[in-house]
Amino acid sequence: MSYGDDRVYKKVEIIGVSKRGLDAAIQAAVTKAHKTLQKLSWFEVQDIRGHVGDDGTVTEYQVILKVAFEIKE
Amino acid sequence: MSYGDDRVYKKVEIIGVSKRGLDAAIQAAVTKAHKTLQKLSWFEVQDIRGHVGDDGTVTEYQVILKVAFEIKE
Amino acid sequence: MSYGDDRVYKKVEIIGVSKRGLDAAIQAAVTKAHKTLQKLSWFEVQDIRGHVGDDGTVTEYQVILKVAFEIKE
Amino acid sequence: MSYGDDRVYKKVEIIGVSKRGLDAAIQAAVTKAHKTLQKLSWFEVQDIRGHVGDDGTVTEYQVILKVAFEIKE
Amino acid sequence: MSYGDDRVYKKVEIIGVSKRGLDAAIQAAVTKAHKTLQKLSWFEVQDIRGHVGDDGTVTEYQVILKVAFEIKE
Amino acid sequence: MSYGDDRVYKKVEIIGVSKRGLDAAIQAAVTKAHKTLQKLSWFEVQDIRGHVGDDGTVTEYQVILKVAFEIKE
Amino acid sequence: MSYGDDRVYKKVEIIGVSKRGLDAAIQAAVTKAHKTLQKLSWFEVQDIRGHVGDDGTVTEYQVILKVAFEIKE
Amino acid sequence: MSYGDDRVYKKVEIIGVSKRGLDAAIQAAVTKAHKTLQKLSWFEVQDIRGHVGDDGTVTEYQVILKVAFEIKE
Amino acid sequence: MSYGDDRVYKKVEIIGVSKRGLDAAIQAAVTKAHKTLQKLSWFEVQDIRGHVGDDGTVTEYQVILKVAFEIKE
Amino acid sequence: MSYGDDRVYKKVEIIGVSKRGLDAAIQAAVTKAHKTLQKLSWFEVQDIRGHVGDDGTVTEYQVILKVAFEIKE
Amino acid sequence: MSYGDDRVYKKVEIIGVSKRGLDAAIQAAVTKAHKTLQKLSWFEVQDIRGHVGDDGTVTEYQVILKVAFEIKE
Amino acid sequence: MSYGDDRVYKKVEIIGVSKRGLDAAIQAAVTKAHKTLQKLSWFEVQDIRGHVGDDGTVTEYQVILKVAFEIKE
Repeated sequence: MSYGDDRVYKKVEIIGVSKRGLDAAIQAAVTKAHKTLQKLSWFEVQDIRGHVGDDGTVTEYQVILKVAFEIKE
Repeated sequence: MSYGDDRVYKKVEIIGVSKRGLDAAIQAAVTKAHKTLQKLSWFEVQDIRGHVGDDGTVTEYQVILKVAFEIKE
Repeated sequence: MSYGDDRVYKKVEIIGVSKRGLDAAIQAAVTKAHKTLQKLSWFEVQDIRGHVGDDGTVTEYQVILKVAFEIKE
Repeated sequence: MSYGDDRVYKKVEIIGVSKRGLDAAIQAAVTKAHKTLQKLSWFEVQDIRGHVGDDGTVTEYQVILKVAFEIKE
Repeated sequence: MSYGDDRVYKKVEIIGVSKRGLDAAIQAAVTKAHKTLQKLSWFEVQDIRGHVGDDGTVTEYQVILKVAFEIKE
Repeated sequence: MSYGDDRVYKKVEIIGVSKRGLDAAIQAAVTKAHKTLQKLSWFEVQDIRGHVGDDGTVTEYQVILKVAFEIKE
Repeated sequence: MSYGDDRVYKKVEIIGVSKRGLDAAIQAAVTKAHKTLQKLSWFEVQDIRGHVGDDGTVTEYQVILKVAFEIKE
Repeated sequence: MSYGDDRVYKKVEIIGVSKRGLDAAIQAAVTKAHKTLQKLSWFEVQDIRGHVGDDGTVTEYQVILKVAFEIKE
Repeated sequence: MSYGDDRVYKKVEIIGVSKRGLDAAIQAAVTKAHKTLQKLSWFEVQDIRGHVGDDGTVTEYQVILKVAFEIKE
Repeated sequence: MSYGDDRVYKKVEIIGVSKRGLDAAIQAAVTKAHKTLQKLSWFEVQDIRGHVGDDGTVTEYQVILKVAFEIKE
Repeated sequence: MSYGDDRVYKKVEIIGVSKRGLDAAIQAAVTKAHKTLQKLSWFEVQDIRGHVGDDGTVTEYQVILKVAFEIKE
Repeated sequence: MSYGDDRVYKKVEIIGVSKRGLDAAIQAAVTKAHKTLQKLSWFEVQDIRGHVGDDGTVTEYQVILKVAFEIKE
């Protein structure tokens, strides 16, 4: 890629869920989107949420992100 | 589904249009997305709009929503 | 299309990049999405960004837009 | 109206109030604006509020909307 | 209540859930908050969401609202 | 006015300018709108800005507000 | 006009439509509002949208703006 | 309090109403919340509104704020 | 809990503070709210802030979150 | 300054703190920025906060503003 | 620059003013910031405004942007 | 510092980049700003983004923050 060329990207919104913390939830989402959707270029965090278990521990972190990839011919 | 497992969801933005009111416009959009896109888990309303006929009645309600479904292998 | 019929639209987020200015970046994104994704109905600009070259000139304009098309059976 | 012609629209913010629910509050506002202001083209919901009576029932729904109409010569 | 007197209100965020549509979900939340929290004065809708069943029907509407009541001595 | 009756309000955006502070800028805008537009019911502050003189004093406060009045037949 | 005098402005929301690009759509809206509404002081762009023709070209640019003018006695 | 210790705060949304101006409405809300809820640490203004009397004077200022206090064991 | 039943939730805004990072600040806030307020169902991150010590290290992370729990009879 | 000439302004975000009320906090911030940064043209209020003393009085008002000045050669 | 290295960027908010249209106002702001502030990497449009002359023509376009550059030792 | 004294702070927007996760990206940005700009008081996270490598791993986390410091004479 070089700046100045005409290009078009697409952004898709996904949610990564992991019990191992924020960094892990981001990586989980990016890994799956990279495999099942398309080779990604970057991501943007939209929102952070999570689930709380009966004992008051965070049982999962949920990170809503937009991931972006180039649309090629 | 059980909380604590690593999962990834995708969210898609759609617009449902119906002349029968807000609830009907939501249901119309959900039904079609469920059939043509994927088995949905939940929806989030983004915006509500509508068209007005020549006689001043609301001829259609337009509900912009995000619908979400799990990405499975 | 006539108002009052039940319809469902989908919106997709894309980024058009062009060195020829804002109008050109919009047209570039719309053209490619029209060809590779679906026959579009309208677009909405979300954000405008750009890249600056070493000599201080704008080397590319980046327009983030949502494009919409009808989901047919 | 045909797409591609130069046109100018005006948007006005109104609040419709009705005890019969959201759809009715929208229709009430659109009807009155259509009669007292101008022949409307479309509406956009901005906010939804309401008043609660002494017995805990919703005594009125208040829908804040923008309504739009074309400015003709 | 008469305008011009010094008063203080409190706002609380609640979520009403009902399978019977938006108006019903609002009324359900208002009724319960009115009984378990305090005698309410008004409400403001913050967000609208919902759950989708396996057959693609909306199995519940979720309305996030702020409800307000006066703080008396 | 009594709650429960069908009513329609209109909101208009105005900017009050005064050198005597925020309260005065709000009152100035409300007074003029009340006289030249319509008998107002309430106002909502949208934004607060101001102009700075050559000596670093605030030479005027500018308050952007929405004012609301009932549309009667 | 000189800074420091008490003044009141009004803002009105309009939509300019033109097939000749963003600058032209802004100018079209400003020209018509200036003639049919009032002598304008400034404008603020709120949103940019557009319509796409069957061949994938942008057939019109729609610019939503607020225009402002002073309310004189 | 010293920085670096684990602590938890709670924020509550209240509305102060006073006819004596913005500063007074803030102080009124803070005083009552301090007495009836909890010993406050700080406040954040969310919105400013007001009521207009029949003669066009501001009969009350309404300031919506969030107030915060530490949750102790 | 099963989807489709009428339920009401309440959301409360709290701030967790910890020097051990973002995940720890979230867990700290959730743990204390779970004990002193109510058995929580989920959380939503609103804002992330922090304090900087004299030597330029982050001495504490502050995470503002909304926590939610069901209101039972 | 005359409209129509090419010009460039810079905006800087500052926080003014005063115990004497909102107007005073704005003026304090503007005065110091005018002296230590640059001769200002205008300001825009971003946020209003404050600190509450042990006796429930507002011990200081904090106004977050953006101040703007022209960049000259 | 290569991805993966620790880097720090700074963003500065500026306003470009030009009578020749949106592209020109962006370029004007970028050129001056590049010369007087620092060698820029990219820009982000925040807002678009403008001034209207007595004859209803747009006498200047004002583009508020954030420009970014790397902080080097 | 003691509450109640007139003070003025400045906020600056920076972006920290690190491959070691969110906490590290925040600390990296704070450390460099503390050294090259000014002795900081606090930070506020604005946005979180990141870059994805060819193998689908997050190659860097980018945290956009505002950092604040007191303006002294």
